[in-house]
Amino acid sequence: MKKLFLFIPVLLVGITLTAQQAIFNAQSGISPEVHSDNRVTFRLFAPNAKTVQVTGDFLPAQKSKTPYGEVDVPGVQDMTRSAAGLWEFTTARPLASELYSYSFLLDSVKISDPNNVYQIRDVGSVTSVFIIGGGQADLYKVNAVAHGTVARRWYNSMTLQKERRLTVYTPPGYESSKTNYPVLYLLHGMGGDEEAWIALGRTAQILDNLIAQGKAKPMIVVMTNGNVAQEAAPGESALGYVKPTMQLPNTMDGTMEKSFPDVMKFVEQNYRTIQQKSGRAIAGLSMGGFHSLHISKEYPDQFDYVGLFSAAIMPMNNTKSAIYENFNQKLKKQFDLKPKLYWIAIGKTDFLYKANQDFRKILDENKYPYKYFENEEGHIWKNWRIYLADFATMIF
Amino acid sequence: MKKLFLFIPVLLVGITLTAQQAIFNAQSGISPEVHSDNRVTFRLFAPNAKTVQVTGDFLPAQKSKTPYGEVDVPGVQDMTRSAAGLWEFTTARPLASELYSYSFLLDSVKISDPNNVYQIRDVGSVTSVFIIGGGQADLYKVNAVAHGTVARRWYNSMTLQKERRLTVYTPPGYESSKTNYPVLYLLHGMGGDEEAWIALGRTAQILDNLIAQGKAKPMIVVMTNGNVAQEAAPGESALGYVKPTMQLPNTMDGTMEKSFPDVMKFVEQNYRTIQQKSGRAIAGLSMGGFHSLHISKEYPDQFDYVGLFSAAIMPMNNTKSAIYENFNQKLKKQFDLKPKLYWIAIGKTDFLYKANQDFRKILDENKYPYKYFENEEGHIWKNWRIYLADFATMIF
Repeated sequence: MKKLFLFIPVLLVGITLTAQQAIFNAQSGISPEVHSDNRVTFRLFAPNAKTVQVTGDFLPAQKSKTPYGEVDVPGVQDMTRSAAGLWEFTTARPLASELYSYSFLLDSVKISDPNNVYQIRDVGSVTSVFIIGGGQADLYKVNAVAHGTVARRWYNSMTLQKERRLTVYTPPGYESSKTNYPVLYLLHGMGGDEEAWIALGRTAQILDNLIAQGKAKPMIVVMTNGNVAQEAAPGESALGYVKPTMQLPNTMDGTMEKSFPDVMKFVEQNYRTIQQKSGRAIAGLSMGGFHSLHISKEYPDQFDYVGLFSAAIMPMNNTKSAIYENFNQKLKKQFDLKPKLYWIAIGKTDFLYKANQDFRKILDENKYPYKYFENEEGHIWKNWRIYLADFATMIF
Repeated sequence: MKKLFLFIPVLLVGITLTAQQAIFNAQSGISPEVHSDNRVTFRLFAPNAKTVQVTGDFLPAQKSKTPYGEVDVPGVQDMTRSAAGLWEFTTARPLASELYSYSFLLDSVKISDPNNVYQIRDVGSVTSVFIIGGGQADLYKVNAVAHGTVARRWYNSMTLQKERRLTVYTPPGYESSKTNYPVLYLLHGMGGDEEAWIALGRTAQILDNLIAQGKAKPMIVVMTNGNVAQEAAPGESALGYVKPTMQLPNTMDGTMEKSFPDVMKFVEQNYRTIQQKSGRAIAGLSMGGFHSLHISKEYPDQFDYVGLFSAAIMPMNNTKSAIYENFNQKLKKQFDLKPKLYWIAIGKTDFLYKANQDFRKILDENKYPYKYFENEEGHIWKNWRIYLADFATMIF
């Protein structure tokens, strides 16, 4: 036998150099390096660069002036070059527990960290990510707990006359039990799609961890695509590898709300669900909060739990959809049916803060019961992960 | 109502600037741009760079000398700077239909294309990708056909005493039918994991398209993790965001083969499968071809279809596993049971070419029937996608 075959070292060399291009492509250095005290070092080997900077949400935000006022943008930090051409920056202090995003600016070109394979797409941009544990972000880690299943499936929307894609989380034990489970419908914001919550929102990790801790009930989470013009996320439909865009038609004209029962029908026909109001929750961020508000009041007998995360509450006077007509009457009907939880969460610096406070006034004036949660910062995924982790413990 | 709310333009500005960081991060230019004649233009806005190059498998490979002989590495092409600082390169000729990978070299730093959100990880490196249609790669595209479901699930390996992750493709109609389906077990190579075939191998697209064309039978495809030291792909286990490594312990010491029945048991208990030899196929690339060879001969009554794609056939004299003992006797038993298809596929320049020819001699000498397919090039995903697409049409 011996003469017939090659040996493992040769296999490794062959694969390394020619095939999977792994070690061949690697840059020098480890980056990011999370030290034992949670300080973090970023590294980029770039001997020919004049400047290398790191930018990301681990740095204090900077103010940037726009025609609409000052807005927060991620800070930028110079890195330091060694004689050999390795650029480095180490945070002065330990970072708080969080899932962080960052990029390098290599002679002003924004790039992902070539040493870090972990990246997440947010609409049309991709950034490198890392997690600092020891606090809130332990919920965002894959831990040694039972794991649910994450499936990408296609359903038929009769209303939209389209096959459409969605992401479904089923909790640990779903497949091996005969139990019926409650369902959380979880909606993304403008520019997002059915990949947003599972990737940026760490839905599967948050649910796995909260369920393992006994803090959340085992539940199915259905992450839809709220862009009715799309069949699926960029790259996942017959449109091919198109450039993702922030704004798509018909996202806030009532069509999403009108076609939503197609999703519910699919889910209830294809999963073992609790098919009553007490077994359904709906929540969403920004535009998804807007959708959750309108879907829950349009179908007032369907959802006992409603979560508005940084919701894009705004007037719909210029649209013709029946969805937005008779707002006050529909809201009254929804609250007459006494939802078990109507939850509004927003950050203090969110540009939608005032709109949410104004909406609270309507609820207060009408004595509609709701819960309110307010925290620091604004319209960012950091907050939406917190809101999901909180909301999930309060439902079902 | 009106006074209570903000307006959509403000929402858009707010989201654009502060939240989802989409347009804010975008670089100038569209890249890659696939022209109507399938020439391709790459662009990078880098006014401060001295050199920008593009490298990838769309360029002719270059020879590189190593201690083990010459190997092919991707070609490198200079890009041209415009006055404004936009670097460009357009291919002289239309590109053949393929899924291509590429990177930029920005003053010698290898980076992904910041304008292209589509990237695939291969072991420890991430590259930008694009697809040229009109030929073979039409099978790799998401087309307007019925789509199967792709699920990431965890199973218990009794043998390994671990919860482990795998990727399962179920064909269109699986959920709504009561039919039992055949199963293809599809194994990755060294450094790969349960994400390799679905991402680099375009398994879901190939199966969706072949099934829609009536060229492949509807089947379940199970993509395992062949690294028994791992629970899951990098980033998907409690190890966290570790740097992927090419070589892991116990991948070729018989443990994978010994524990494989745990996977089969899980699949047959959790999916509607055809639980007989004629309903099972096993195939793999490189190390996964090695595993397929040994698993299929170790359990000779289990698989009627065996596919060895660029298989890493090699002697196992230095390992103590019973899996590799009595090779000839086991192989005889396997062929005595007359598998319906034993398929060997390899590229002419693959570094495992000779090992595969030597293995064929054993089969020939013993008059064991098999089919053989040989094509151009070597140990690359381009070939493994072709082999999967061919193999899938020949089974069940």
